[in-house]
Amino acid sequence: MRQILKRIYFDWAASAPYNDDELVPENNIFLGNPSSKHSEGKAAKAALEKAREQCAEALNVSSENLYFTSGGTESNSIALFSNLTKISQGRIIASAAEHASIREGMETLAKMGKPVGKIAVDSSGRVTADTLEKALEKYPDTRFVSIMSVNNETGSVTDIPSLRDVLRKKTDGTAPIHFHCDLVQAVGKIPIDIQNWEIDSAAISSHKICGPRGIGLLYLRRPAESFEVFYSGGGQEKGIRGGTENTMGAIALAKCLKSINNEKAHSRMNKLITALSKMERCTLIPVIRSTLDAHPSPHFSPYILQAAFKDIPGEVMARALDDKGFAVSTGSACSSSSNERPVLAAMGVDEKLRVEGIRISQGYTTTDEDIDLLIEAIEEVLKFL
Amino acid sequence: MRQILKRIYFDWAASAPYNDDELVPENNIFLGNPSSKHSEGKAAKAALEKAREQCAEALNVSSENLYFTSGGTESNSIALFSNLTKISQGRIIASAAEHASIREGMETLAKMGKPVGKIAVDSSGRVTADTLEKALEKYPDTRFVSIMSVNNETGSVTDIPSLRDVLRKKTDGTAPIHFHCDLVQAVGKIPIDIQNWEIDSAAISSHKICGPRGIGLLYLRRPAESFEVFYSGGGQEKGIRGGTENTMGAIALAKCLKSINNEKAHSRMNKLITALSKMERCTLIPVIRSTLDAHPSPHFSPYILQAAFKDIPGEVMARALDDKGFAVSTGSACSSSSNERPVLAAMGVDEKLRVEGIRISQGYTTTDEDIDLLIEAIEEVLKFL
Repeated sequence: MRQILKRIYFDWAASAPYNDDELVPENNIFLGNPSSKHSEGKAAKAALEKAREQCAEALNVSSENLYFTSGGTESNSIALFSNLTKISQGRIIASAAEHASIREGMETLAKMGKPVGKIAVDSSGRVTADTLEKALEKYPDTRFVSIMSVNNETGSVTDIPSLRDVLRKKTDGTAPIHFHCDLVQAVGKIPIDIQNWEIDSAAISSHKICGPRGIGLLYLRRPAESFEVFYSGGGQEKGIRGGTENTMGAIALAKCLKSINNEKAHSRMNKLITALSKMERCTLIPVIRSTLDAHPSPHFSPYILQAAFKDIPGEVMARALDDKGFAVSTGSACSSSSNERPVLAAMGVDEKLRVEGIRISQGYTTTDEDIDLLIEAIEEVLKFL
Repeated sequence: MRQILKRIYFDWAASAPYNDDELVPENNIFLGNPSSKHSEGKAAKAALEKAREQCAEALNVSSENLYFTSGGTESNSIALFSNLTKISQGRIIASAAEHASIREGMETLAKMGKPVGKIAVDSSGRVTADTLEKALEKYPDTRFVSIMSVNNETGSVTDIPSLRDVLRKKTDGTAPIHFHCDLVQAVGKIPIDIQNWEIDSAAISSHKICGPRGIGLLYLRRPAESFEVFYSGGGQEKGIRGGTENTMGAIALAKCLKSINNEKAHSRMNKLITALSKMERCTLIPVIRSTLDAHPSPHFSPYILQAAFKDIPGEVMARALDDKGFAVSTGSACSSSSNERPVLAAMGVDEKLRVEGIRISQGYTTTDEDIDLLIEAIEEVLKFL
C-alpha cells in the first residue's frame, strides 16, 4: 500500500475540501469535519482546538470557556435564548442601547411570553451603577441582564466591574442573575478583563477585528453542561452551537486576536476630536467627548466617534463624504436600513441632532494622513452644504 | 481631493477588511458591510446579490426565494423553529431518518410543548407515499413536514414529487401543510427540481459541495413577509437570518454551484458496488443496492454507500482503512460521537449489521484509481481481520 503521504478521502458526505488553504503544510492533510474520527477529522479537531487555545490566550480566559459560533449576532442569540429553556420564570432585562441582535431578540422573547425590561442609559449611552440599580428595583424578578461593553454608535465604554458589583449585591441570598455582555466593539479595541469582570457570557465577533465573516465566539463562565442551551443542533461545540465547525474561520480569528495592535489609535482619535471640536457647526455626541480633559479617556473607545453637523442630515453628510472617497456611516449597519436612531434616542439626544449624527470609526491600519484627509474633506463639505 | 481610486475607510465598526480577497479587482473597493450605505457597502450588497442570482440560476429557482445562512444546520433550524411563532397549534412531523439538526430541533420543539411526530422510513431509509400517508392518518393535525431528499447514511433518494402529491391531497380544503426538505446531500449530487417539487422550504450547505464552511442557503417558496421567522436578528436577509452577511462565503458558494460536475460519479460508484458485492463478507445497506438491475439507479445517490463487513465493527474497519491512508466514516459526522446508529435502526437494520456499517462517500475529484485502491485496501484488511 501507499504511504499516508497522499491520503485518499472517502468522507465527502461529512465535508468536502474547499481549497488549498485547508491543507496543513506540515503533513499535507485536509482539515476534514472535526467530528469525524479519521485522520482528516482528527487533524481538523486538533487545528480547531489549537485555534481555541490561541483565542483563549489572547482573551486571557480558559479555552474551555470559549465556543465558536457564526458571529456576534449568533453569540448574543445563544446566550439570550437560553432563557427559553429555563424553568425559572425570571425576567430578562437589557440596556436601552443594545445592538439590534439583542434588541430584536428581546422582542422575540417578549412574544414568547417571557417577561422583559429595559435598563436606561446615561447621555453617553452607558448603563451606570445607578441606572442598573433602578432597573433592578423596578424589576426585582430579574434573572438575566444584557449590557454591552462599548456602545457601537458612540464608542462610550461601560464600567462593567461597577455593574458586576451591583449585581453581586442583588444576587446575595437570592437566585443568581446571569450577566451577559456584548463585547463585539470592545475586544481588540479597549482593555478588557473577562475573567475578573465575572461576566457569565459574552459575544465576540471576528469581522470587526479584521477576521473573516461567519465566525465568532461565545464565552461562557460556567461549563456547557450547566448552560441550558435552547437548541444544540448536531451537538458540536459541546452542544452549545450546532453545525459543522468553521475550522478555517476559527484559525483566522485566532490569528487576528494574536496580532491586534492598538498603538496609535488613541492619538489618531485625539487628532480627529481636536479638529472637529474646533469646527463651529460640529457637535460631538455626547458633547462631553470634546471637553474631556485627559486623553486617552478610559470612558470612550478610540475607535468610534459620533458627530453631528448643524443643518446637514447625517445621510447627506455621509453621501457627500462618500463622493469624496470616504466611507462613514449613519448609525449601526445592522439598523441602517431604518432612519430611526434608537440608541441616540435612548441617550436623550434631541431629534434634530439624531438626524444629523454620523459615525466615524477607524481601524488598525488607519493612518494619521487618513485622519488629516478626512478633516479636510469635512471642511470642504461644510463650505458647500 | 483625491479621486475615489484610493478610498479611505472610516466604517470599521460596521466591518473591517479581512484580506485582499475582499477587494474586488475591477474597482479596487473593499466589500464592506452590505447593510452600509457607502460605496463599500453598496459594492458588498451588489456582490452579495450577484452571488444570490448565480445560486438561483444554478438551482433553477428565483433569487428572491434564496436566503444566505451559516449552513445546512441553520437553514434547517430556521425553517423548523418558524413553528414556534405560528399561532396555529399544528403538529410537526419528520422522517425517522433525518439529520441530527432536524432530529435535535424536533426534540427542542417537543420540550417547548409543540406536538411532534415521526414518519416511518422503508428499509432503504426513505419516506414513501405509503409511510407518509400512514403518518398523516395517525397525526391529522399535522401542519409541518420535514423530509430529507438524500439520506446522508445510505444515499437513498426519496421520491419527493410522490410525497408532494400525498400532501396536496391532504391539504385540499383544509389548512396547508408546510413541506420542508433537507437538500444538503442532494444539491450538486442528484437531479433536483425545487420549483416543480413545490417544496415550501429547503436547506442547502456549501461545504458539502466543496464550498467554504460557514455559509449555506435557505430556500423559501413564499415571500419572507409571509414566513413567520422565530428570530430575525439584525434584520438582514429580509429578516430571515440576522448577522452581517458573509459576502465572500456567498460568492464562493455561488462559484461552487456553477462548477458542479457529476460526470463520472455513477460509473465510479458502480465500480465500487460491483467489487464490494463480490466480497463474501460484505453486505451493502440496504441489501437491495447490490441487486439493482439498472445503473445508474435513480433511487440512490452515486456519492454515498453504506456497507458492512462480517465480524468487523465499523469503527475497526474505519480505523484500519485510516491506517492505510483512506478516510471513511461510521455514520454521519454530526452523530459520530455516539455509537448509536439511529438512522440505520429506523430502517430496521439489525443491531449486528448496524455496528458493522461504514459509510463510503466520494466527491468531485475522486478518481477511478482511488476506487481501485480503496477496493484493494479493503481486501487487504479483510485478510487480517
